[in-house]
Amino acid sequence: MTTPRKPDGPAGRFAYDGLERVIHEKARLGILTSLVTNPRGLLFNDLKEMCALTDGNLSRHLQVLHEAGLVEVWKGFQHNRPQTLCRLTPDGRRRFLEYINVLENVIADALAAKPEAAAGEELSEGWSPA
Amino acid sequence: MTTPRKPDGPAGRFAYDGLERVIHEKARLGILTSLVTNPRGLLFNDLKEMCALTDGNLSRHLQVLHEAGLVEVWKGFQHNRPQTLCRLTPDGRRRFLEYINVLENVIADALAAKPEAAAGEELSEGWSPA
Repeated sequence: MTTPRKPDGPAGRFAYDGLERVIHEKARLGILTSLVTNPRGLLFNDLKEMCALTDGNLSRHLQVLHEAGLVEVWKGFQHNRPQTLCRLTPDGRRRFLEYINVLENVIADALAAKPEAAAGEELSEGWSPA
Repeated sequence: MTTPRKPDGPAGRFAYDGLERVIHEKARLGILTSLVTNPRGLLFNDLKEMCALTDGNLSRHLQVLHEAGLVEVWKGFQHNRPQTLCRLTPDGRRRFLEYINVLENVIADALAAKPEAAAGEELSEGWSPA
């Protein structure tokens, strides 16, 4: 039997304000991770393939990332064909690594949970499902 | 000067399908991290404070988490007052730890980026801003 305890830690302990929303969105997180590991930039079609996105989805997310100042988009030619090249901006790289830093805190917090005190224990009397 | 290279790795390498969307949303990630570190459950007001959420926001996110089978919500009394108790379900705990596992892969990928090859290098000729 178990009853809730007053938690440790200050208010806002789990607010994670540093998780910038424009970066946190799942598809954009994949795009930015691709780009940070490919600092020379990636061609649109390669990026699309690595992130398993459609043309439309990738375009839309790139526009959001570009407007947020995280990504540069260039037009040019390679292998005699018109190409679109995407790259992190220096500011985008810095903000992405800050975001990753906060993500590391989330993981450290989550893994600090005591494994012996698992969910599913019986509640003490007097509680009923909401 | 720099030109993009063909990236390494298989298609979908950065799709991160295991990042379950219901868990990934920023506020819900905070709620679930609070709950996994407090396996006996948390009272609504404590959870609200730790995650720096309003009553309305916390209620809405708890409903989403409850409908997804991640969280239990109980009504009862503590300190002579009606209280709402929130707890991870056993399935919620398992899925959250799976999610954290994928998040660890994202971080490993992001930090594998070679620091010497920073963003902002000059592009080779023939590229212009889109």
